[in-house]
Amino acid sequence: MIAPLPTGSTIGILGGGQLGRMLAMAAARLGYHTHIYEPGDAPAAQVATAWTKADYGDGAALAAFAGAVDVITYEFENIPATTLDLLDVSQSIRPGRQALSVSQDRLTEKTFLESIGLTVAPYRDVPDAGALVAALVDLGTPAILKTRRLGYDGKGQVRIDDSASAGAAFDAMSGADAILEGVVPFSREVSVIVARGQDGETVCFDPGENVHSGGILRTTTVPAALSAAQRTDAALLAGRIANALDYVGVLGVELFVTDAGLVVNEIAPRVHNSGHWTQAGCAVDQFEQHIRAVVGLPLGDGRRIADVVMENLIGDDVDRLPDLLRAPDTQVHLYGKSEVRAGRKMGHANRIVR
Amino acid sequence: MIAPLPTGSTIGILGGGQLGRMLAMAAARLGYHTHIYEPGDAPAAQVATAWTKADYGDGAALAAFAGAVDVITYEFENIPATTLDLLDVSQSIRPGRQALSVSQDRLTEKTFLESIGLTVAPYRDVPDAGALVAALVDLGTPAILKTRRLGYDGKGQVRIDDSASAGAAFDAMSGADAILEGVVPFSREVSVIVARGQDGETVCFDPGENVHSGGILRTTTVPAALSAAQRTDAALLAGRIANALDYVGVLGVELFVTDAGLVVNEIAPRVHNSGHWTQAGCAVDQFEQHIRAVVGLPLGDGRRIADVVMENLIGDDVDRLPDLLRAPDTQVHLYGKSEVRAGRKMGHANRIVR
Repeated sequence: MIAPLPTGSTIGILGGGQLGRMLAMAAARLGYHTHIYEPGDAPAAQVATAWTKADYGDGAALAAFAGAVDVITYEFENIPATTLDLLDVSQSIRPGRQALSVSQDRLTEKTFLESIGLTVAPYRDVPDAGALVAALVDLGTPAILKTRRLGYDGKGQVRIDDSASAGAAFDAMSGADAILEGVVPFSREVSVIVARGQDGETVCFDPGENVHSGGILRTTTVPAALSAAQRTDAALLAGRIANALDYVGVLGVELFVTDAGLVVNEIAPRVHNSGHWTQAGCAVDQFEQHIRAVVGLPLGDGRRIADVVMENLIGDDVDRLPDLLRAPDTQVHLYGKSEVRAGRKMGHANRIVR
Repeated sequence: MIAPLPTGSTIGILGGGQLGRMLAMAAARLGYHTHIYEPGDAPAAQVATAWTKADYGDGAALAAFAGAVDVITYEFENIPATTLDLLDVSQSIRPGRQALSVSQDRLTEKTFLESIGLTVAPYRDVPDAGALVAALVDLGTPAILKTRRLGYDGKGQVRIDDSASAGAAFDAMSGADAILEGVVPFSREVSVIVARGQDGETVCFDPGENVHSGGILRTTTVPAALSAAQRTDAALLAGRIANALDYVGVLGVELFVTDAGLVVNEIAPRVHNSGHWTQAGCAVDQFEQHIRAVVGLPLGDGRRIADVVMENLIGDDVDRLPDLLRAPDTQVHLYGKSEVRAGRKMGHANRIVR
């Protein structure tokens, strides 16, 4: 038996964006306080009990933060290892550091996924220009050159359509360690969100079908058009990853559906944009499952009770708000960001399909 | 056309309990900031952007609060008139003062409801002991003696089963103005939550069926066991009240279902405990409808999309949390109150029935 943190305890959250914001609201629903650590703008702080506005390298601020909270979680995976070192001495971090180190580096992540028997896109390590040439010979074109670290929403990657463009692609990495990935011919992109509790109990949300544009998620639709076998495969695969990492919390797994089976594109050790539909489609959503796991409460009922289409509101998509607010069966979630910028996620809408 | 308050504006909320807390979370979902005004403990402040902890008679604090917010709303109707006078000069209060003055006084409320053609329980004004004797002769026993002001959750009322207990009942009022109400023979208690926008648009949630115990709401079930005609009557009646008050926001109307039709028990110019089911049963819940109305946004889709049983968690009901957290199809909402007391509303659970 795990003794959960008592109601009224404080959950520290590294990162103050929309994911931290929705985590903070889920924590409040369960009677917990939240404390956001975020050096920049912090939409999450608007709904949190406290906010430390300090740099991720600020040892004194990190120590004070760790001292003020009862457990630490995070909304993004690119937390510097030095930050974790400073926090780790005094406070539990959930999900644990193995999940972070695996997911912070595309090469480590792929190696790990293969080591537990899963299929990933073909890849080659590209430490230098010569390795890129060899990798292109192996994998052919088109292929995608990606930085090993710090990529998200399509950033840090360049598509190589023919070998003539390889030099420019390599230069675009600005010397960062990279990998080359073969392009997988897939019929659909889906993701599966899995929650794992401190007692090892694992609960999967229904897979969602994703449409990306310009590297950014546009919509997630549930149910995804998958066979029963594919659905089961997706859940088993996500559970296998969570177990192998001795994971605590919610984990997002992006998958390609191919003729040869499910191929893991990438994993994210946190709540995931493709899981926002759970707010309208489940009794207990991904944010609450994450909080439950982190504080040691039992996981809730995440079965899908409605079909949902989640649409991200990106940049001036928010101009459509007057219509979305009136749309039937539609929930709008805005992130409290003051400035609208192209490509910036401003909110999302969950439309229940019935 | 109403120009809504821009995203990022601040909504001032008088009162910092669970209703203010859930209003603050709904405001956040729409990108608004909230500022709580509450002299005591303030669970709402945990999820608000700011908190003024000051007395309702503190003119300087009220002026600063009014200056810091873009509109004012409230989570309870017993706001002192002097507080409203101090705020009213500088800031819009929604719902407006007419709704407050009507609902703060049971005698005024009943007179108003009758004036717009609705049926209320038979009642008599009881300014003194002699009036009580006359009223008991008129209405018979059993009857209920209620203070005109400041009653809630069964407080401020005494049941009179026979004339011998009238003296003790009168003494229990401690000199407060009171009314005597006849007991209405009803088959069910239902309530209907109506939202009215600044443009006069009115949207009703489905009526819920309520079970009270010791004067406190225990459960609300939707759909209520009503005929189609009763359902329509309930919605029309609630709309009539909202229109007559030129109301802006969410209004709760408690009704008795009798052989002679629907009898209005009381109205509450705010989000209402019997509307908590909307969090699990509708795309847009009562808290968000209220915020939308208050800031001038269009009302959302409040149609019922699931059957729900809402159960209040009162006092040591929270000991059942481990089971409730694991219960199928169940959402738990806790209010962040540190101290468990008998009769205190600690949270609620929404169970989706399918």
